[in-house]
Amino acid sequence: MSLFRGIKYFLLSDNSKHKILKSILGFRPLNIELYEQAFTHASVAGQEDEAMEESNERLEFLGDAVLGAIVAEYFFVKFPNKNEGELTKLRSKMVSRSFLNQLAIDMGLDSFLETSADTRRSKSIFGDAFEALIGAIYLDRGYQSCKKFVTEKVIPDYVELSKLIKTESDFKSRFIELAQKERYKFEFKNVMLQHQDHIRYRSILLIDGVEVGEGEGSSKKKAEQMAAQTYFEKRK
Amino acid sequence: MSLFRGIKYFLLSDNSKHKILKSILGFRPLNIELYEQAFTHASVAGQEDEAMEESNERLEFLGDAVLGAIVAEYFFVKFPNKNEGELTKLRSKMVSRSFLNQLAIDMGLDSFLETSADTRRSKSIFGDAFEALIGAIYLDRGYQSCKKFVTEKVIPDYVELSKLIKTESDFKSRFIELAQKERYKFEFKNVMLQHQDHIRYRSILLIDGVEVGEGEGSSKKKAEQMAAQTYFEKRK
Repeated sequence: MSLFRGIKYFLLSDNSKHKILKSILGFRPLNIELYEQAFTHASVAGQEDEAMEESNERLEFLGDAVLGAIVAEYFFVKFPNKNEGELTKLRSKMVSRSFLNQLAIDMGLDSFLETSADTRRSKSIFGDAFEALIGAIYLDRGYQSCKKFVTEKVIPDYVELSKLIKTESDFKSRFIELAQKERYKFEFKNVMLQHQDHIRYRSILLIDGVEVGEGEGSSKKKAEQMAAQTYFEKRK
Repeated sequence: MSLFRGIKYFLLSDNSKHKILKSILGFRPLNIELYEQAFTHASVAGQEDEAMEESNERLEFLGDAVLGAIVAEYFFVKFPNKNEGELTKLRSKMVSRSFLNQLAIDMGLDSFLETSADTRRSKSIFGDAFEALIGAIYLDRGYQSCKKFVTEKVIPDYVELSKLIKTESDFKSRFIELAQKERYKFEFKNVMLQHQDHIRYRSILLIDGVEVGEGEGSSKKKAEQMAAQTYFEKRK
Protein backbone atom coordinates (compact mmCIF):
# COMPACT_ATOMS: atom_id res chain seq x y z
CA MET A 1 0.00 0.00 0.00
CA SER A 2 1.32 3.41 -0.84
CA LEU A 3 2.21 5.83 1.94
CA PHE A 4 -0.42 8.37 0.89
CA ARG A 5 -3.12 5.74 0.23
CA GLY A 6 -4.90 7.38 -2.68
CA ILE A 7 -6.60 9.86 -0.40
CA LYS A 8 -7.89 13.10 -1.93
CA TYR A 9 -6.32 15.40 0.62
CA PHE A 10 -8.10 18.57 -0.38
CA LEU A 11 -11.52 17.00 0.21
CA LEU A 12 -10.79 16.18 3.86
CA SER A 13 -11.90 18.14 6.94
CA ASP A 14 -9.18 19.91 8.92
CA ASN A 15 -9.41 17.31 11.62
CA SER A 16 -8.95 14.48 9.13
CA LYS A 17 -6.06 16.32 7.53
CA HIS A 18 -4.26 16.44 10.89
CA LYS A 19 -4.87 12.74 11.46
CA ILE A 20 -3.80 11.59 8.04
CA LEU A 21 -0.70 13.78 8.04
CA LYS A 22 0.26 12.41 11.43
CA SER A 23 -0.02 8.83 10.24
CA ILE A 24 2.04 9.58 7.12
CA LEU A 25 4.74 11.73 8.70
CA GLY A 26 5.09 9.90 11.98
CA PHE A 27 4.59 13.06 14.03
CA ARG A 28 1.83 15.58 14.65
CA PRO A 29 2.02 18.52 12.23
CA LEU A 30 1.89 21.88 14.01
CA ASN A 31 1.22 24.30 11.17
CA ILE A 32 -1.12 22.57 8.78
CA GLU A 33 -1.09 25.49 6.34
CA LEU A 34 2.47 24.68 5.36
CA TYR A 35 1.34 21.29 4.12
CA GLU A 36 -1.57 22.77 2.22
CA GLN A 37 0.95 24.99 0.49
CA ALA A 38 3.23 22.06 -0.27
CA PHE A 39 0.37 20.30 -2.03
CA THR A 40 -0.70 23.36 -4.02
CA HIS A 41 0.70 23.44 -7.53
CA ALA A 42 1.31 26.81 -9.16
CA SER A 43 -1.48 26.11 -11.64
CA VAL A 44 -4.13 26.48 -8.91
CA ALA A 45 -2.41 28.97 -6.59
CA GLY A 46 -3.95 32.38 -5.93
CA GLN A 47 -5.33 34.29 -8.88
CA GLU A 48 -4.60 37.95 -8.52
CA ASP A 49 -8.11 39.07 -7.51
CA GLU A 50 -8.45 36.37 -4.84
CA ALA A 51 -6.97 36.07 -1.40
CA MET A 52 -3.43 35.00 -2.24
CA GLU A 53 -2.90 31.30 -1.85
CA GLU A 54 0.78 30.63 -2.27
CA SER A 55 2.02 27.83 -4.50
CA ASN A 56 4.56 25.23 -3.47
CA GLU A 57 7.45 26.66 -5.49
CA ARG A 58 9.31 28.45 -2.71
CA LEU A 59 8.87 25.44 -0.43
CA GLU A 60 10.27 23.30 -3.23
CA PHE A 61 13.39 25.49 -3.31
CA LEU A 62 13.88 25.03 0.42
CA GLY A 63 13.01 21.34 0.45
CA ASP A 64 15.38 20.60 -2.42
CA ALA A 65 18.28 21.97 -0.36
CA VAL A 66 17.27 20.28 2.88
CA LEU A 67 16.73 16.95 1.12
CA GLY A 68 20.18 17.32 -0.48
CA ALA A 69 21.78 17.65 2.95
CA ILE A 70 19.86 14.74 4.45
CA VAL A 71 20.67 12.43 1.55
CA ALA A 72 24.34 13.51 1.63
CA GLU A 73 24.62 12.63 5.31
CA TYR A 74 22.77 9.38 4.80
CA PHE A 75 25.26 8.21 2.16
CA PHE A 76 28.23 9.68 4.06
CA VAL A 77 27.39 7.54 7.10
CA LYS A 78 26.21 4.46 5.21
CA PHE A 79 29.27 4.22 2.97
CA PRO A 80 32.34 5.14 5.03
CA ASN A 81 34.64 3.75 2.35
CA LYS A 82 33.24 5.51 -0.68
CA ASN A 83 35.11 8.61 -1.77
CA GLU A 84 33.50 11.98 -2.39
CA GLY A 85 33.17 11.31 -6.13
CA GLU A 86 31.17 8.15 -5.58
CA LEU A 87 29.07 9.80 -2.88
CA THR A 88 28.34 12.76 -5.16
CA LYS A 89 27.17 10.43 -7.93
CA LEU A 90 24.88 8.49 -5.63
CA ARG A 91 23.41 11.65 -4.19
CA SER A 92 22.87 13.18 -7.63
CA LYS A 93 20.97 10.13 -8.72
CA MET A 94 18.75 10.08 -5.70
CA VAL A 95 17.83 13.76 -5.92
CA SER A 96 17.52 13.77 -9.72
CA ARG A 97 14.24 14.93 -11.19
CA SER A 98 13.47 11.55 -12.70
CA PHE A 99 14.15 9.66 -9.49
CA LEU A 100 12.12 11.99 -7.27
CA ASN A 101 9.19 11.95 -9.68
CA GLN A 102 9.04 8.20 -9.62
CA LEU A 103 9.51 8.18 -5.85
CA ALA A 104 6.62 10.60 -5.32
CA ILE A 105 4.36 8.51 -7.58
CA ASP A 106 5.35 5.27 -5.82
CA MET A 107 4.49 6.91 -2.52
CA GLY A 108 1.11 7.94 -3.87
CA LEU A 109 1.78 11.62 -3.29
CA ASP A 110 -0.02 12.43 -6.56
CA SER A 111 -3.42 11.99 -4.93
CA PHE A 112 -2.57 14.75 -2.43
CA LEU A 113 -1.66 17.30 -5.01
CA GLU A 114 -4.02 20.04 -6.10
CA THR A 115 -3.42 21.03 -9.71
CA SER A 116 -5.40 22.20 -12.67
CA ALA A 117 -6.34 19.25 -14.87
CA ASP A 118 -4.04 20.05 -17.75
CA THR A 119 -0.82 20.22 -15.70
CA ARG A 120 -1.14 16.58 -14.68
CA ARG A 121 0.66 15.50 -17.79
CA SER A 122 4.06 16.60 -16.59
CA LYS A 123 5.36 14.05 -14.12
CA SER A 124 7.89 16.41 -12.65
CA ILE A 125 5.21 18.14 -10.58
CA PHE A 126 5.13 15.14 -8.24
CA GLY A 127 8.86 15.26 -7.52
CA ASP A 128 8.52 18.99 -7.01
CA ALA A 129 5.68 18.38 -4.54
CA PHE A 130 7.81 15.87 -2.66
CA GLU A 131 10.54 18.47 -2.26
CA ALA A 132 7.94 21.02 -1.18
CA LEU A 133 6.70 18.56 1.44
CA ILE A 134 10.25 18.29 2.81
CA GLY A 135 10.37 22.10 2.91
CA ALA A 136 7.07 22.17 4.82
CA ILE A 137 8.26 19.59 7.35
CA TYR A 138 11.46 21.57 7.82
CA LEU A 139 9.62 24.81 8.59
CA ASP A 140 7.04 23.04 10.73
CA ARG A 141 9.22 20.75 12.82
CA GLY A 142 12.88 21.35 11.95
CA TYR A 143 15.78 19.46 10.48
CA GLN A 144 15.65 16.39 12.73
CA SER A 145 12.02 15.65 11.86
CA CYS A 146 12.81 15.93 8.16
CA LYS A 147 15.72 13.60 8.56
CA LYS A 148 13.63 11.06 10.44
CA PHE A 149 10.92 11.17 7.79
CA VAL A 150 13.38 10.68 4.94
CA THR A 151 15.64 8.08 6.52
CA GLU A 152 13.04 6.10 8.47
CA LYS A 153 9.94 6.34 6.28
CA VAL A 154 10.93 7.16 2.72
CA ILE A 155 14.25 5.44 2.11
CA PRO A 156 13.52 2.07 3.76
CA ASP A 157 10.19 1.64 1.98
CA TYR A 158 10.71 3.32 -1.37
CA VAL A 159 14.40 3.45 -2.28
CA GLU A 160 16.20 0.35 -3.48
CA LEU A 161 19.78 1.27 -2.79
CA SER A 162 21.27 -1.67 -4.66
CA LYS A 163 19.33 -0.66 -7.75
CA LEU A 164 20.38 2.96 -7.33
CA ILE A 165 24.03 1.90 -7.22
CA LYS A 166 23.72 -0.46 -10.16
CA THR A 167 21.85 1.76 -12.62
CA GLU A 168 24.77 4.13 -12.51
CA SER A 169 26.23 3.88 -15.99
CA ASP A 170 23.57 2.30 -18.11
CA PHE A 171 22.21 5.37 -19.82
CA LYS A 172 24.06 5.11 -23.09
CA SER A 173 23.05 1.48 -23.66
CA ARG A 174 19.50 2.30 -22.65
CA PHE A 175 19.46 5.14 -25.15
CA ILE A 176 20.89 3.09 -28.00
CA GLU A 177 18.34 0.35 -27.37
CA LEU A 178 15.54 2.89 -27.45
CA ALA A 179 16.94 4.60 -30.55
CA GLN A 180 17.07 1.31 -32.43
CA LYS A 181 13.54 0.46 -31.44
CA GLU A 182 12.23 3.88 -32.43
CA ARG A 183 14.50 4.14 -35.49
CA TYR A 184 15.98 7.45 -34.34
CA LYS A 185 18.82 8.86 -36.39
CA PHE A 186 21.13 9.85 -33.57
CA GLU A 187 24.70 10.92 -33.07
CA PHE A 188 26.98 11.71 -30.11
CA LYS A 189 29.07 14.74 -31.07
CA ASN A 190 32.13 14.84 -28.84
CA VAL A 191 34.48 17.75 -28.37
CA MET A 192 37.62 18.05 -26.32
CA LEU A 193 37.73 20.84 -23.75
CA GLN A 194 41.13 22.24 -22.96
CA HIS A 195 41.51 23.43 -19.39
CA GLN A 196 44.65 24.94 -17.92
CA ASP A 197 46.07 21.66 -16.67
CA HIS A 198 43.74 18.94 -17.80
CA ILE A 199 41.48 17.83 -20.60
CA ARG A 200 37.77 17.12 -20.42
CA TYR A 201 35.18 16.07 -22.95
CA ARG A 202 31.78 17.34 -23.84
CA SER A 203 29.28 15.18 -25.62
CA ILE A 204 26.19 16.48 -27.37
CA LEU A 205 23.52 13.97 -28.25
CA LEU A 206 21.52 14.75 -31.38
CA ILE A 207 18.43 13.14 -32.83
CA ASP A 208 17.80 14.20 -36.43
CA GLY A 209 20.34 16.95 -35.92
CA VAL A 210 18.52 18.47 -32.92
CA GLU A 211 20.24 18.49 -29.55
CA VAL A 212 18.42 16.29 -27.05
CA GLY A 213 21.07 15.84 -24.37
CA GLU A 214 24.53 16.91 -23.33
CA GLY A 215 27.18 15.87 -20.88
CA GLU A 216 30.70 16.52 -19.75
CA GLY A 217 33.30 14.29 -18.19
CA SER A 218 36.90 13.28 -17.88
CA SER A 219 36.50 10.75 -20.71
CA LYS A 220 34.43 10.55 -23.87
CA LYS A 221 32.59 7.59 -22.38
CA LYS A 222 31.58 9.51 -19.27
CA ALA A 223 30.50 12.53 -21.29
CA GLU A 224 28.33 10.30 -23.51
CA GLN A 225 26.80 8.57 -20.49
CA MET A 226 25.85 11.91 -19.06
CA ALA A 227 24.47 13.14 -22.38
CA ALA A 228 22.24 10.08 -22.57
CA GLN A 229 21.21 10.57 -18.96
CA THR A 230 20.14 14.17 -19.53
CA TYR A 231 18.09 12.94 -22.49
CA PHE A 232 16.13 10.62 -20.18
CA GLU A 233 15.75 13.28 -17.52
CA LYS A 234 14.32 15.82 -19.94
CA ARG A 235 11.80 13.35 -21.35
CA LYS A 236 9.89 12.67 -18.15
CA MET B 1 41.10 41.23 11.44
CA SER B 2 40.37 37.93 9.78
CA LEU B 3 38.43 35.28 11.67
CA PHE B 4 41.30 32.79 11.60
CA ARG B 5 43.96 35.41 12.43
CA GLY B 6 46.85 34.03 10.42
CA ILE B 7 47.48 31.29 12.96
CA LYS B 8 49.38 28.19 11.83
CA TYR B 9 46.91 25.70 13.23
CA PHE B 10 49.01 22.61 12.77
CA LEU B 11 51.82 24.03 14.91
CA LEU B 12 49.58 24.51 17.98
CA SER B 13 49.30 22.24 21.01
CA ASP B 14 46.03 20.33 21.44
CA ASN B 15 45.03 22.66 24.24
CA SER B 16 45.61 25.72 22.08
CA LYS B 17 43.72 24.12 19.22
CA HIS B 18 40.66 23.70 21.45
CA LYS B 19 40.87 27.30 22.57
CA ILE B 20 41.38 28.82 19.16
CA LEU B 21 38.61 26.72 17.63
CA LYS B 22 36.26 27.77 20.39
CA SER B 23 36.94 31.43 19.78
CA ILE B 24 36.43 31.05 16.03
CA LEU B 25 33.38 28.82 16.07
CA GLY B 26 31.60 30.33 19.05
CA PHE B 27 31.22 26.96 20.80
CA ARG B 28 33.51 24.33 22.28
CA PRO B 29 34.46 21.65 19.76
CA LEU B 30 33.90 18.15 21.08
CA ASN B 31 35.76 16.00 18.60
CA ILE B 32 38.87 17.90 17.62
CA GLU B 33 39.96 15.23 15.12
CA LEU B 34 37.14 16.21 12.79
CA TYR B 35 38.61 19.69 12.49
CA GLU B 36 42.10 18.33 11.90
CA GLN B 37 40.62 16.35 9.05
CA ALA B 38 38.82 19.39 7.66
CA PHE B 39 42.12 21.25 7.50
CA THR B 40 44.00 18.36 5.87
CA HIS B 41 44.26 18.67 2.11
CA ALA B 42 44.47 15.48 0.04
CA SER B 43 48.06 16.36 -0.91
CA VAL B 44 49.27 15.66 2.64
CA ALA B 45 46.77 13.02 3.74
CA GLY B 46 47.94 9.51 4.68
CA GLN B 47 50.50 7.84 2.51
CA GLU B 48 49.78 4.18 2.24
CA ASP B 49 52.57 2.95 4.54
CA GLU B 50 51.63 5.38 7.30
CA ALA B 51 48.79 5.36 9.77
CA MET B 52 45.96 6.57 7.60
CA GLU B 53 45.23 10.23 8.00
CA GLU B 54 42.07 11.01 6.10
CA SER B 55 41.86 14.04 3.82
CA ASN B 56 39.05 16.57 3.91
CA GLU B 57 37.36 15.41 0.72
CA ARG B 58 34.52 13.40 2.24
CA LEU B 59 33.87 16.16 4.76
CA GLU B 60 33.76 18.59 1.85
CA PHE B 61 31.03 16.50 0.21
CA LEU B 62 28.98 16.58 3.41
CA GLY B 63 29.66 20.25 4.17
CA ASP B 64 28.75 21.32 0.65
CA ALA B 65 25.27 19.82 1.10
CA VAL B 66 24.76 21.16 4.62
CA LEU B 67 25.91 24.63 3.59
CA GLY B 68 23.51 24.51 0.64
CA ALA B 69 20.60 23.87 2.99
CA ILE B 70 21.62 26.58 5.46
CA VAL B 71 22.07 29.17 2.72
CA ALA B 72 18.77 28.17 1.12
CA GLU B 73 16.91 28.68 4.38
CA TYR B 74 18.72 31.95 5.03
CA PHE B 75 17.58 33.42 1.72
CA PHE B 76 14.12 31.84 2.00
CA VAL B 77 13.51 33.64 5.30
CA LYS B 78 15.31 36.87 4.43
CA PHE B 79 13.53 37.41 1.11
CA PRO B 80 9.88 36.36 1.55
CA ASN B 81 8.93 38.05 -1.71
CA LYS B 82 11.54 36.56 -4.00
CA ASN B 83 10.39 33.63 -6.08
CA GLU B 84 12.19 30.31 -6.28
CA GLY B 85 14.08 31.33 -9.43
CA GLU B 86 15.57 34.39 -7.75
CA LEU B 87 16.34 32.41 -4.60
CA THR B 88 18.05 29.69 -6.62
CA LYS B 89 20.24 32.25 -8.36
CA LEU B 90 21.28 33.90 -5.11
CA ARG B 91 22.06 30.59 -3.51
CA SER B 92 24.07 29.40 -6.53
CA LYS B 93 26.17 32.50 -6.37
CA MET B 94 26.89 32.19 -2.70
CA VAL B 95 27.88 28.54 -2.86
CA SER B 96 29.79 28.90 -6.14
CA ARG B 97 33.42 27.81 -6.18
CA SER B 98 34.69 31.29 -6.87
CA PHE B 99 32.65 32.88 -4.09
CA LEU B 100 33.58 30.28 -1.46
CA ASN B 101 37.25 30.50 -2.36
CA GLN B 102 37.30 34.22 -1.87
CA LEU B 103 35.26 33.88 1.31
CA ALA B 104 37.69 31.36 2.78
CA ILE B 105 40.64 33.60 1.94
CA ASP B 106 38.93 36.68 3.40
CA MET B 107 38.32 34.71 6.58
CA GLY B 108 41.99 33.74 6.71
CA LEU B 109 41.20 30.03 6.58
CA ASP B 110 44.25 29.51 4.37
CA SER B 111 46.61 29.72 7.33
CA PHE B 112 44.83 26.75 8.94
CA LEU B 113 45.16 24.48 5.98
CA GLU B 114 47.82 21.80 5.74
CA THR B 115 48.86 21.19 2.14
CA SER B 116 51.94 20.26 0.23
CA ALA B 117 53.67 23.39 -1.04
CA ASP B 118 52.83 22.92 -4.71
CA THR B 119 49.07 22.63 -4.27
CA ARG B 120 48.82 26.15 -2.86
CA ARG B 121 48.51 27.56 -6.33
CA SER B 122 44.93 26.45 -6.82
CA LYS B 123 42.66 28.78 -4.90
CA SER B 124 39.79 26.33 -4.91
CA ILE B 125 41.38 24.34 -2.07
CA PHE B 126 40.36 27.08 0.36
CA GLY B 127 36.71 27.00 -0.61
CA ASP B 128 36.88 23.21 -0.36
CA ALA B 129 38.35 23.51 3.13
CA PHE B 130 35.58 25.88 4.16
CA GLU B 131 33.00 23.31 3.08
CA ALA B 132 34.93 20.61 4.92
CA LEU B 133 34.87 22.78 8.05
CA ILE B 134 31.08 22.98 7.77
CA GLY B 135 31.00 19.19 7.44
CA ALA B 136 33.16 18.87 10.57
CA ILE B 137 30.94 21.21 12.57
CA TYR B 138 27.90 19.26 11.43
CA LEU B 139 29.30 15.93 12.59
CA ASP B 140 30.66 17.42 15.80
CA ARG B 141 27.75 19.54 16.95
CA GLY B 142 24.84 19.12 14.55
CA TYR B 143 22.82 21.20 12.16
CA GLN B 144 21.90 24.03 14.53
CA SER B 145 25.52 24.77 15.39
CA CYS B 146 26.42 24.87 11.71
CA LYS B 147 23.56 27.22 11.04
CA LYS B 148 24.59 29.52 13.88
CA PHE B 149 28.18 29.61 12.66
CA VAL B 150 27.17 30.42 9.08
CA THR B 151 24.39 32.91 9.78
CA GLU B 152 25.86 34.62 12.85
CA LYS B 153 29.59 34.53 12.19
CA VAL B 154 30.26 34.08 8.49
CA ILE B 155 27.48 35.93 6.69
CA PRO B 156 27.36 39.11 8.81
CA ASP B 157 31.12 39.63 8.70
CA TYR B 158 32.13 38.29 5.30
CA VAL B 159 29.20 38.35 2.90
CA GLU B 160 28.01 41.60 1.35
CA LEU B 161 24.50 40.68 0.36
CA SER B 162 23.88 43.84 -1.67
CA LYS B 163 26.98 43.09 -3.72
CA LEU B 164 25.94 39.48 -4.15
CA ILE B 165 22.57 40.60 -5.50
CA LYS B 166 24.04 43.24 -7.78
CA THR B 167 26.80 41.21 -9.41
CA GLU B 168 24.11 38.88 -10.67
CA SER B 169 24.23 39.56 -14.37
CA ASP B 170 27.52 41.26 -14.92
CA PHE B 171 29.52 38.33 -16.20
CA LYS B 172 29.18 39.01 -19.90
CA SER B 173 30.26 42.65 -19.58
CA ARG B 174 33.07 41.63 -17.28
CA PHE B 175 34.21 39.08 -19.83
CA ILE B 176 34.06 41.47 -22.76
CA GLU B 177 36.06 44.04 -20.83
CA LEU B 178 38.70 41.45 -20.02
CA ALA B 179 38.75 40.14 -23.59
CA GLN B 180 39.33 43.61 -24.99
CA LYS B 181 42.11 44.25 -22.51
CA GLU B 182 43.79 40.90 -23.26
CA ARG B 183 43.00 41.08 -26.99
CA TYR B 184 41.24 37.71 -26.96
CA LYS B 185 39.53 36.64 -30.14
CA PHE B 186 36.28 35.40 -28.69
CA GLU B 187 32.85 34.38 -29.84
CA PHE B 188 29.57 33.31 -28.19
CA LYS B 189 28.11 30.48 -30.25
CA ASN B 190 24.41 30.20 -29.53
CA VAL B 191 22.15 27.32 -30.41
CA MET B 192 18.46 26.87 -29.89
CA LEU B 193 17.32 23.82 -27.95
CA GLN B 194 13.94 22.42 -28.79
CA HIS B 195 12.15 20.87 -25.86
CA GLN B 196 8.71 19.30 -26.00
CA ASP B 197 6.84 22.44 -25.11
CA HIS B 198 9.38 25.23 -24.86
CA ILE B 199 12.55 26.58 -26.31
CA ARG B 200 15.84 27.17 -24.54
CA TYR B 201 19.21 28.41 -25.63
CA ARG B 202 22.71 27.16 -25.16
CA SER B 203 25.68 29.44 -25.49
CA ILE B 204 29.24 28.24 -25.92
CA LEU B 205 31.98 30.76 -25.32
CA LEU B 206 35.10 30.28 -27.42
CA ILE B 207 38.51 31.95 -27.25
CA ASP B 208 40.59 31.30 -30.37
CA GLY B 209 38.12 28.58 -31.29
CA VAL B 210 38.56 26.70 -27.99
CA GLU B 211 35.60 26.34 -25.66
CA VAL B 212 36.16 28.18 -22.39
CA GLY B 213 32.63 28.41 -21.02
CA GLU B 214 29.09 27.33 -21.64
CA GLY B 215 25.64 28.18 -20.40
CA GLU B 216 21.98 27.50 -20.93
CA GLY B 217 18.91 29.62 -20.35
CA SER B 218 15.49 30.68 -21.47
CA SER B 219 16.98 33.49 -23.57
CA LYS B 220 20.17 33.99 -25.54
CA LYS B 221 21.15 36.70 -23.10
CA LYS B 222 20.82 34.44 -20.09
CA ALA B 223 22.71 31.62 -21.79
CA GLU B 224 25.57 34.01 -22.63
CA GLN B 225 25.65 35.35 -19.08
CA MET B 226 26.01 31.86 -17.78
CA ALA B 227 28.66 30.95 -20.34
CA ALA B 228 30.71 33.96 -19.23
CA GLN B 229 30.15 33.04 -15.59
CA THR B 230 31.43 29.50 -16.08
CA TYR B 231 34.49 30.99 -17.74
CA PHE B 232 35.29 32.98 -14.60
CA GLU B 233 34.59 30.03 -12.33
CA LYS B 234 36.93 27.74 -14.21
CA ARG B 235 39.76 30.28 -14.16
CA LYS B 236 40.15 30.52 -10.40
